[in-house]
Amino acid sequence: MTGRTGARTETRGTPPAEPGPGGTAPPPPPAPPVAVALAHEIVPPALLDWIARLGPDLATLCGYQMGLCDAEGAPGRPGPAAGPDRRTPEGTDASGRPGGGKLVRPALALATAAAAGAEPKEALPAALAAELVHNFTLLHDDVMDGDRVRRHRPAAWVRFGTPLAILAGDGLLALAFEVLSSHPAPGGAEVTGDLARALRQLCLGQGRDLLAAAVPPTAGSAPPGSPGAAPGTEDTAAGTVPEISPEDCLRTLEAKTGALLGFACRAGAAYAGAPLAAQEAFERFGSRLGLAFQLQDDVLGIWGRPGRTGKPALSDLRARKRSAPVVAALASGTAPGRRLAKLYARPDPLGEDELALAADLVEAAGGRDWTLAEAERWREAGWESLRPLELSATGLAGLRELTGRLTDRSS
Amino acid sequence: MTGRTGARTETRGTPPAEPGPGGTAPPPPPAPPVAVALAHEIVPPALLDWIARLGPDLATLCGYQMGLCDAEGAPGRPGPAAGPDRRTPEGTDASGRPGGGKLVRPALALATAAAAGAEPKEALPAALAAELVHNFTLLHDDVMDGDRVRRHRPAAWVRFGTPLAILAGDGLLALAFEVLSSHPAPGGAEVTGDLARALRQLCLGQGRDLLAAAVPPTAGSAPPGSPGAAPGTEDTAAGTVPEISPEDCLRTLEAKTGALLGFACRAGAAYAGAPLAAQEAFERFGSRLGLAFQLQDDVLGIWGRPGRTGKPALSDLRARKRSAPVVAALASGTAPGRRLAKLYARPDPLGEDELALAADLVEAAGGRDWTLAEAERWREAGWESLRPLELSATGLAGLRELTGRLTDRSS
Repeated sequence: MTGRTGARTETRGTPPAEPGPGGTAPPPPPAPPVAVALAHEIVPPALLDWIARLGPDLATLCGYQMGLCDAEGAPGRPGPAAGPDRRTPEGTDASGRPGGGKLVRPALALATAAAAGAEPKEALPAALAAELVHNFTLLHDDVMDGDRVRRHRPAAWVRFGTPLAILAGDGLLALAFEVLSSHPAPGGAEVTGDLARALRQLCLGQGRDLLAAAVPPTAGSAPPGSPGAAPGTEDTAAGTVPEISPEDCLRTLEAKTGALLGFACRAGAAYAGAPLAAQEAFERFGSRLGLAFQLQDDVLGIWGRPGRTGKPALSDLRARKRSAPVVAALASGTAPGRRLAKLYARPDPLGEDELALAADLVEAAGGRDWTLAEAERWREAGWESLRPLELSATGLAGLRELTGRLTDRSS
Repeated sequence: MTGRTGARTETRGTPPAEPGPGGTAPPPPPAPPVAVALAHEIVPPALLDWIARLGPDLATLCGYQMGLCDAEGAPGRPGPAAGPDRRTPEGTDASGRPGGGKLVRPALALATAAAAGAEPKEALPAALAAELVHNFTLLHDDVMDGDRVRRHRPAAWVRFGTPLAILAGDGLLALAFEVLSSHPAPGGAEVTGDLARALRQLCLGQGRDLLAAAVPPTAGSAPPGSPGAAPGTEDTAAGTVPEISPEDCLRTLEAKTGALLGFACRAGAAYAGAPLAAQEAFERFGSRLGLAFQLQDDVLGIWGRPGRTGKPALSDLRARKRSAPVVAALASGTAPGRRLAKLYARPDPLGEDELALAADLVEAAGGRDWTLAEAERWREAGWESLRPLELSATGLAGLRELTGRLTDRSS
């Protein structure tokens, strides 16, 4: 599976330029959603103020991690991450603003506050806390997963060493709670408790991922008589059926990505002064949208175009990640699923032909269709959670504009 | 310097038995202070309940880290850490209770609540949060510092792997904030904000340590004309004068140990319903006592008897730590200080004779006396912070009983 909090999406802002169809110039990008534009205006300066509290060395590391400075602390978007994107103006990221990542979570917090009837900037503390925690997860997950590249640059632990990267993550967590407690939400809303719960969910999700990766699939572990265990056929020769059910996979993705997006929305509503029931509805909305977003991302991790994803084609298969389409295919009980299990159980790296074959097997086993259908189901369920709130058309439009950009990326 | 939060003290509970003077049986140990006994009664079961929220695998790791179970999750004090202590009954730790570390921070929180006039158990959330954060720092610091042994057993990262150890630390932090926010202190005291600030201080202190360790002393870095730079003498041939001033050292120790003990006391007072000014006074008390405690510990790291410290003699010198006595000696401008700098600059390991010489040089340069004097100064300053509060004799006696045990260990 992919990073704890939609990690891959962070690498997608600024891939190299690609010619449009037929070699013509790319079409002009759409304007960024209002909440995204506001997030890019008010969040990076505030982040810089907060991370300065960690002292110059950790602040530089955190700024580098967040794309706010280079590894020496010089401000602005650093070299390797800069570059035109066919969906965005040159030198900006997918949101149309320079530097600082896509700020998905801050934008969600601000848009939620607007939908809840407040000035979006009232939710700045929620926006900052969500982004600080997001970067905490990226710092620590990159260490835990051994991922060496982040936003087209060396991961922070590669550049600054593992100890400082761990410590910087800890520092960002401290700041997240400090932001919230120094700017209490109106009406005594318990946002620090909400963040603590979300943080625990993030840890649970990452733990499931780590443990699933650590336990090699057991030969013959499928129950006798199950499709995966059909004896005496070539398909079961490898005998490896990873013990992750599609339901487990959804639970993990919800914990890893849904929890923090759920927090961003809930806290956005809390800072807007929304009542508890509305905060809870917004949390469900964010959590379900986050799950849809991550499922979509797992599809892109196999079939996304490198020019858009910023990653090599088939990268999740190359790393033999058990992303949602793969899990669904392995659990499908189909012949392509069993052939995929064999490929995944091979100790040696897969060649290009085998990677292409693996992608075809995932698709033939129904893994792609299942994942896209689940993404759609959770997107719909997310919107369903907001129905009791009777939001204004304007507020809803802002949320739809933002989340449509997030989850409608099936190319 | 030593661990972020008085790490060494955690390894001292259960060294092998030593005969008393003249080979007679050891004297019976004194009864543990009241707050320590209470902490050992109510804190471990509550910790086990909380860590269960992280799921079975992380809970086992956390229980192992805290000395509440073995590496397979079986309850009780695990083998290698068990054993008689000449100051405590067999099979118990220095506090006279089985398992679970010494619970210094929880005991401080409970004793502070009592001193502030409440039932000590009212401060259980403060006690739990402090102990959870303490173990978070141990988990992460052991990874960052590469320390392989903790409480006479393999450190958690050695036993469970670095990724899970990092993640478990993150999980403990989440729980600490969850404990506090799910049990708000009376009168709206902002304990989560207090914890966030303390956590940031812990990170700042650890960052100073990491960065000081990472930068090798520069040849000839002492300013011309300063005692360390006297040219042409044998003493300066190594040319390495570590650029840590005694004041820097005190600041780092205060951040690494003082901050969390300060939080434990402040939060103990907050849960006792003490007014803000009293909370602040108790925080200063805890922070200063913590500094005294760590300075004392740094003396034991060189001159402590292995039977009491649970570490080999001269262990801090062997690791060439820049603990407080060493920093003071290096900055002393004395001939022994310059000889010590030469020894510390040697690339090869120091032999036993050289280690003994180094200890003598630290002492001759005044490093031991300075550290003990500073410990005394900060202990006194700690008590001074409580003077405006006009505490009851009983409340003060409980605190004195507890902190006397902590800081009066100069043998």
